[in-house]
Amino acid sequence: MQRRNFIKTATIAAIATSMQSSLFAMQSDKVKNITRKGKLKLSFRPYDLQLRHIFIIANSSRATTPVVLTEIEYDGIIGYGEASLPPYLGETQASVIEFLKKINLEQFSDPFQLEDILGYVDKIAENNTAAKASIDIALHDLIGKIMQQPWHKIWGLDKSKSPSTSFTIGIDSLDVVRQKTLEASSLYNILKVKLGRNTDKEMIETIRSVSDKPIAVDINQGWTDKQMALDMIYWLKEHGVVMVEQPMSKYKLDDIAWITERSPLPIFADESFQRLTDLPRLKGAFSGVNIKLMKCTGMREAWKILNVARAADMKVMIGCMTETSCAISAASQLSPAVDWADLDGNLLITNDLYKGTTVVDGKLTLTDLPGIGIEKI
Amino acid sequence: MQRRNFIKTATIAAIATSMQSSLFAMQSDKVKNITRKGKLKLSFRPYDLQLRHIFIIANSSRATTPVVLTEIEYDGIIGYGEASLPPYLGETQASVIEFLKKINLEQFSDPFQLEDILGYVDKIAENNTAAKASIDIALHDLIGKIMQQPWHKIWGLDKSKSPSTSFTIGIDSLDVVRQKTLEASSLYNILKVKLGRNTDKEMIETIRSVSDKPIAVDINQGWTDKQMALDMIYWLKEHGVVMVEQPMSKYKLDDIAWITERSPLPIFADESFQRLTDLPRLKGAFSGVNIKLMKCTGMREAWKILNVARAADMKVMIGCMTETSCAISAASQLSPAVDWADLDGNLLITNDLYKGTTVVDGKLTLTDLPGIGIEKI
Repeated sequence: MQRRNFIKTATIAAIATSMQSSLFAMQSDKVKNITRKGKLKLSFRPYDLQLRHIFIIANSSRATTPVVLTEIEYDGIIGYGEASLPPYLGETQASVIEFLKKINLEQFSDPFQLEDILGYVDKIAENNTAAKASIDIALHDLIGKIMQQPWHKIWGLDKSKSPSTSFTIGIDSLDVVRQKTLEASSLYNILKVKLGRNTDKEMIETIRSVSDKPIAVDINQGWTDKQMALDMIYWLKEHGVVMVEQPMSKYKLDDIAWITERSPLPIFADESFQRLTDLPRLKGAFSGVNIKLMKCTGMREAWKILNVARAADMKVMIGCMTETSCAISAASQLSPAVDWADLDGNLLITNDLYKGTTVVDGKLTLTDLPGIGIEKI
Repeated sequence: MQRRNFIKTATIAAIATSMQSSLFAMQSDKVKNITRKGKLKLSFRPYDLQLRHIFIIANSSRATTPVVLTEIEYDGIIGYGEASLPPYLGETQASVIEFLKKINLEQFSDPFQLEDILGYVDKIAENNTAAKASIDIALHDLIGKIMQQPWHKIWGLDKSKSPSTSFTIGIDSLDVVRQKTLEASSLYNILKVKLGRNTDKEMIETIRSVSDKPIAVDINQGWTDKQMALDMIYWLKEHGVVMVEQPMSKYKLDDIAWITERSPLPIFADESFQRLTDLPRLKGAFSGVNIKLMKCTGMREAWKILNVARAADMKVMIGCMTETSCAISAASQLSPAVDWADLDGNLLITNDLYKGTTVVDGKLTLTDLPGIGIEKI
């Protein structure tokens, strides 16, 4: 069928359907459930994110982050997903693709049955959390598109309450840090810096020499002595730091609990926290947890974590890896309900493929698009 | 405008809209969010449920249960809700109406913002949980209708996994109990009986004389000695009882914990449990909780309770008051995710106003209708 003919036929069919449905709409208590039929078709491909700046960590540096992009098609609608794979987390494009090849979504007739579908995916293998998230995100995008609503609305949240995102100032020479801080300070409302070295105070003082914006610090398990850590937190608070991530090793939970009990700043779990099942033992040891879709298997578990953490009177932040606007926009759907957001992963790449949640005056700004709120660029 | 003209105009407008949307649908990654405009209009009226059998409790009996029925209209779509008010819970039709009159929903432009709207409603006054539930249910019905999906699907659940509901055999003379058991036994897969008197064994033996169906027992805080309670639970287990609700007073949590630790049957909290905030202190003391929409303020909190309870490795049952198929169908949306269901409230009345979730071969059977899955009879 020629495209023009197809459009014509489709339009006529739609008019017929529409006449029925407009009559239905008037009997508003009889609106019928739209039942769709079809099979879930999964496709995926590797993609390398080009980083705006070379990323320096303890023993290495890199210019790209590998990801795998997923699509799940159902009844002519496509949901987009993504697995982001920073090397230190153990998943690779090859391992994700191997995992995705094991998934048979065609056995499910209804994409809405997330509890069963994601339960099945979770049981295929241990770990592989980013691969699992790439399925979860694509299904949420698909379902949201079927319902024609974005997930922040389906979850009952008001997107105008999304917080500002922090923006990370990478470790570099003090001159470069000063320059980066100046640039970031004009665009973002919270700066983030990774500490846990013997240059911690120098970094903070350098940032403070050019900006008075609040600072979030991520220690990445870097401190080794609890009393030193607590003293440092008091010093940081005096210098306008507002929160601390993972001050000590995840194997030193008692020391972290000791710090949290005495800390004037909230202490968040990052390396200590992956999934919902980790939450109970962290209550009391941390003020809150950093939810990352790539670690917790996606949006469904993230929403559960949020609710369970709130019930335990814990704070919640939402974080990310280097990701396209696909996974970032997915994570941002949760952001109206969190205390802190650290969703700058898409701001650090030069070859994004999607347009979605943006940062306006430093604040996460969600679209009204359905699903995870993105379109292809 | 005459009705006929209205239909015509509406149809033409719908055709125009439909032509656009069918074009959109072909570019499936560009499906737009349907934005609706309008005000939320709340209306309500008292209604008396006629009971099929006179309801006998310790010191009184009654032939009706008062409820208040709510409707929330938005953009031509109506969501239905209900507050059920058995006298012993303290709310009356007058107190519910007084509460509902205080609610100004017109300040909210978007019915999807449940976190804010229900947060506002919850803060209007303490308690009044049934009145709050009547708003929560109507909004869920409305939103589900806008998205054209039932809540079990929005929550990611498979309705074919809904369990059988238990059906209560009322307290009566042993002849009547025998007769009622015979009738119920042919329709339901689990029988429920209220114990906590000196006739407990007699009741069970009478039921067992005519039926071998599994039995759930609700003690309603009736037992006063923990050792006696535990001995009784062992005896009940031998007689095919499968679960126990609220064995002792809610003020005797330590005794209940002692029982739960030793019990061969799961022990559920009912009087001990109202809302999400009660959950943490019940962990360890009970095997699970009985969620009732009229006590926990509705579907949104019920879904949170379910997820928090699961994270705490606790069992979940869903219960009800005497209710129309409105509140019963709303509660049943959660049922594919629970361990036990006790949703027989609508089966006990003769003047139901809605058609929704039914019992087929003893099993809760949800409709595919959107929202809470009901239509007016």
